[in-house]
Amino acid sequence: MAASVALIQGASRGLGLAFCKHILNKSPAVVIATCRDPDAAAGLQELSAKHRDRLTLLRLDVTSEEDIRGSAELVKSRFGRLDLLVNASAQLHPSGKGETSLRDVSAQGILATLTTNTVGPLVMAKYFAPLLQKGGGGFGQQPGEKAKQHSGVIANITAKVGSIGDNGLGGWYSYRLSKAALNMATKNLSIELGRARPKVLCVSLHPGTLNTDLSRPYHKNVPKDKLFTTEHSVNCLMHIIDTLDINRTGKAFNWDGTELPW
Amino acid sequence: MAASVALIQGASRGLGLAFCKHILNKSPAVVIATCRDPDAAAGLQELSAKHRDRLTLLRLDVTSEEDIRGSAELVKSRFGRLDLLVNASAQLHPSGKGETSLRDVSAQGILATLTTNTVGPLVMAKYFAPLLQKGGGGFGQQPGEKAKQHSGVIANITAKVGSIGDNGLGGWYSYRLSKAALNMATKNLSIELGRARPKVLCVSLHPGTLNTDLSRPYHKNVPKDKLFTTEHSVNCLMHIIDTLDINRTGKAFNWDGTELPW
Repeated sequence: MAASVALIQGASRGLGLAFCKHILNKSPAVVIATCRDPDAAAGLQELSAKHRDRLTLLRLDVTSEEDIRGSAELVKSRFGRLDLLVNASAQLHPSGKGETSLRDVSAQGILATLTTNTVGPLVMAKYFAPLLQKGGGGFGQQPGEKAKQHSGVIANITAKVGSIGDNGLGGWYSYRLSKAALNMATKNLSIELGRARPKVLCVSLHPGTLNTDLSRPYHKNVPKDKLFTTEHSVNCLMHIIDTLDINRTGKAFNWDGTELPW
Repeated sequence: MAASVALIQGASRGLGLAFCKHILNKSPAVVIATCRDPDAAAGLQELSAKHRDRLTLLRLDVTSEEDIRGSAELVKSRFGRLDLLVNASAQLHPSGKGETSLRDVSAQGILATLTTNTVGPLVMAKYFAPLLQKGGGGFGQQPGEKAKQHSGVIANITAKVGSIGDNGLGGWYSYRLSKAALNMATKNLSIELGRARPKVLCVSLHPGTLNTDLSRPYHKNVPKDKLFTTEHSVNCLMHIIDTLDINRTGKAFNWDGTELPW
């Protein structure tokens, strides 16, 4: 049987890049890494030199439905299937700083953040779901009963601050709204694709607080042992994906496998 | 003391219009009714003929931040304060039909729905919060302790299908995402404005299934006794608003006063 195929959306750096490295290093799977400008993505170029036979770089702007549609066609003609889709691209806010109060909120800022963090992943799911239904179920656990098995997995990278029930601090309007809506997308996808034959699983994953550009400005308030490298975080998240089955689809998980409240 | 001031956003018909009628008929409060085209809103024109002294019609397109900012300035100069803001405008999807499957999802459809249902209410809160902080607390219950009293109330009309935890059917991607994100906005607003002095309360309210244009295409699946008139629904929702205090801010309520899960 052919090797599994994983597509990491938002792979130029940070968590997305770490997912590519992890899968290439720890499995025989083929990886498709997408980002807006692969030529300018130093980390991906370096990885590509090492894994030329198993890594495909693909230009894809997740804010463009046309780009997404075209990429899905390309992946279809070249690979014919997909086993794992990770939606990793995200922004805190176009300014790079989350809103500390209502005064900082703007319609434009919220919409730009929703476009990248929420609409992008959902439109990715729309065009790649048919390919995930042709997957070989290379990621996750397959129960014995054939009707409960799955062909593919969608992992949407969420954030704990996207939990409405867990929200005790406020602020970061755009980012919080975008991740709450993304969690609804995950739940909705898990229902529609969980009914389908073959099934595709869908979960939201919170990576912890990472040493990445997105969260770096906020590190002074994070205890050292709670600040993860992207490698550590991806180790944890891939463990969740590797142990996933139909009984746990449609949920949001912390890096440690505990369930995140909505 | 001057009469309380209530602003109903999305008042041309349906639930918004019913809020205007209820408040004009059952209280001495002044009502500001906003919609995209007041001249074409027959129900509002009729109401205006009856309550010329207490009802102000205001043109406001909730998808335009400039419109919202301008309206807030106008309300400030004319009334100087606000006691209640109800965000009632909503659409299922630009097509008028919720998506039944992923195939119906489009980036444009989601973004248009988010713009009206989520971004609009939040940007309303941004510009009207300063006026709500000048309110006299004419809606809701004031506890004895002065530090726990509030000056104003924001009620965002949500929907049960915007509850992620309650989602058992899937579909309606745009609408569900927009209301989940609106619920996060409610929670975030309740935190920021609950810390402020004076305080502004913020809740999400689910009106039940209504006999309005938004939900009419879906009535065949709703038992007769669960299909509310807008008058009945507003009676229920105003009871929640009238009994609201700081202890219940930041929550989502069903029409019957029970709490809705996130």
